[in-house]
Amino acid sequence: MASYNLLLLPGDGIGPEVMAGVETVLAALRETGIASFETETDLVGGAAIDRHGKPLADETLARARSADAILLGAVGGPKWNGVAYEIRPEAGLLRLRKDLGLFANLRPAICYPALADASALKRELVEGLDIMIVRELTGGVYFGEPKEITVLDDGTKRAVDTQVYTTGEIERIAHVAFDLARKRSGRVASAEKHNVMKSGVLWKEVVTAVHAQHYSDVALEHVLADNCAMQLVRRPKQFDVLVTDNLFGDVLSDVAAMLTGSLGMLPSASLGAAEEGGLRRALYEPVHGSAPDIAGADKANPIAMIGSLAMCLRYSFGLGEAADLLDGAITDTLAAGTRTADIATGGAQAIGTKAMAEAIAAA
Amino acid sequence: MASYNLLLLPGDGIGPEVMAGVETVLAALRETGIASFETETDLVGGAAIDRHGKPLADETLARARSADAILLGAVGGPKWNGVAYEIRPEAGLLRLRKDLGLFANLRPAICYPALADASALKRELVEGLDIMIVRELTGGVYFGEPKEITVLDDGTKRAVDTQVYTTGEIERIAHVAFDLARKRSGRVASAEKHNVMKSGVLWKEVVTAVHAQHYSDVALEHVLADNCAMQLVRRPKQFDVLVTDNLFGDVLSDVAAMLTGSLGMLPSASLGAAEEGGLRRALYEPVHGSAPDIAGADKANPIAMIGSLAMCLRYSFGLGEAADLLDGAITDTLAAGTRTADIATGGAQAIGTKAMAEAIAAA
Ligand SMILES: CC(C)[C@H](C(=O)O)[C@@H](O)C(=O)O
Ligand SMILES: CC(C)[C@H](C(=O)O)[C@@H](O)C(=O)O
Repeated sequence: MASYNLLLLPGDGIGPEVMAGVETVLAALRETGIASFETETDLVGGAAIDRHGKPLADETLARARSADAILLGAVGGPKWNGVAYEIRPEAGLLRLRKDLGLFANLRPAICYPALADASALKRELVEGLDIMIVRELTGGVYFGEPKEITVLDDGTKRAVDTQVYTTGEIERIAHVAFDLARKRSGRVASAEKHNVMKSGVLWKEVVTAVHAQHYSDVALEHVLADNCAMQLVRRPKQFDVLVTDNLFGDVLSDVAAMLTGSLGMLPSASLGAAEEGGLRRALYEPVHGSAPDIAGADKANPIAMIGSLAMCLRYSFGLGEAADLLDGAITDTLAAGTRTADIATGGAQAIGTKAMAEAIAAA
Repeated sequence: MASYNLLLLPGDGIGPEVMAGVETVLAALRETGIASFETETDLVGGAAIDRHGKPLADETLARARSADAILLGAVGGPKWNGVAYEIRPEAGLLRLRKDLGLFANLRPAICYPALADASALKRELVEGLDIMIVRELTGGVYFGEPKEITVLDDGTKRAVDTQVYTTGEIERIAHVAFDLARKRSGRVASAEKHNVMKSGVLWKEVVTAVHAQHYSDVALEHVLADNCAMQLVRRPKQFDVLVTDNLFGDVLSDVAAMLTGSLGMLPSASLGAAEEGGLRRALYEPVHGSAPDIAGADKANPIAMIGSLAMCLRYSFGLGEAADLLDGAITDTLAAGTRTADIATGGAQAIGTKAMAEAIAAA
């Protein structure tokens, strides 16, 4: 029986609660005998600041490097609003992404039929929605230099951020998107602002070239990022795979997630390059944030976190059947009417984080 | 009777058709004796490329400088996809914004009751929606240097865009937002990514300072741009004035516009600093684009363009009553069931661009 070691980084806010759900499910998975899982738990974000004075200790990064996969809860919260930019909670997450080379962020936006009514959009526009957003995660304005604030002679300030993309960075994320499209509906939309940004010009050029050379069987459409945001609201089902840069991906994936009406249910995977003879580095986390307002109240929905474990089984360990089993357990639990407060509509009785995780583990 | 001179820049696609609607309305306004309007018409965007080889001729810029206000239709279209970045149609519009110092872009997102059903969102979420987006328009990643693509030694490329904001740039747009909020509901939301961008850190700091020093009577809320996009979809009516940078403003204003269900109805104003003893420079344009697919078919909705004229009367000429008259004519025309194709729902009979402009002029 294969054995995998997982690094669990619960983080802040509701992170620890939803991560407890992962442990409940892992216990159930161990019993099925599909694989054996070792876990280690460590700090990230605000929790790490409180302990170490910085959001990611070097030892934690070392553990992350040697783990077969990482599961992360959420980082940040008002408690750390006052800390310096360099050691803010988010910096821990950004360092993990960058140092581990997790350039491909996959964010499925799926509308569960049982929850379509929770969407702000009319049911017919979102029912059956199934978009895969492929966001570049280690480049762009997140990491380009210079990134600084300088004080001018008159005492006022000047802030600079730099968006950088190279041919190679765009090529590798384009491959991820096209490969995924082949296993799905065979359609890719690529979003940028080539009418305003030079990085958009290069993005469009490189995606076009990768398409022409390797994926003429896939349909490719270019869309301006502002128009893309509009189209996501207007007629979201026109999209299948949507590939875009780090910053547009941040905003567009949040719009897509919100459309589904079930933000608390959406997982994500951040993948590195496939390494020879080994696993690719990978981190799995919910799309939702740390929700400090409900932290500790046993109210959070653990499904996004548990769904992230399902993505981990699928993408890191090739355990497609186990992932299907787990996704099926989530669907069955929902179909049975089991709901946490965020998705309990029409007077349905809501259960807590723990009870939801147990229900899924039982299923 | 005051006399104003307007520069009309119809541009590309449906631009000329919707601008013809402005001329129809101007003729009606002249008859009311409210003011007298002189107009000059010139080329911008693709139309200017076809004539002059560039999207904004120097003579046109000179005319723009001496006009009391500018009305612009739309620029761009697939016909000019092949032209170099420096002379693409959009560059004409960007040069107008930058060279005239039109730093404050006001984009109202209003949901007309008669059209609430055209929204992708559920009626109760958008009925009565009235957001004013205040987008910074002459800074940020649109204009920062370096902005270039370089070829590396191995033949691959590297693209760079630079987002720059100074204290002064943020202060002046913050003042515009807070002043507007005072005349509205007294609430401002400011959107940035201070958790990832240094320009976001400075943005938040300066907006906070302007608020504390001058506008303690206005309620200020800071929101991360990605979360803001989500919240716009989830519960748009929580926002009143929303101030943000050039790039986020581009995306967020398009999302807000789409929510209203009536993109073809939304005007915008781009304003310069108030000048001593004179008018402030200003350009008015619809939020929609050039819609090349329906250009020349007498199908476009001229209301956004005519509404932009109403904004011009209000903001440039202080003709609040005439603007109210014109806005009222639009509302009445809609209430009477008159519809262009884009907003004709439920089997309503649609009329053409010309007929719509005439109906409004008559009202
Ligand atoms: C927490 C923050 C740094 C992060 C981002 O901007 O990437 C988050 O918004 C996300 O989308 O994962
Ligand atoms: C045409 C384009 C340059 C422009 C922009 O990006 O600002 C447009 O999208 C807008 O919002 O006015």
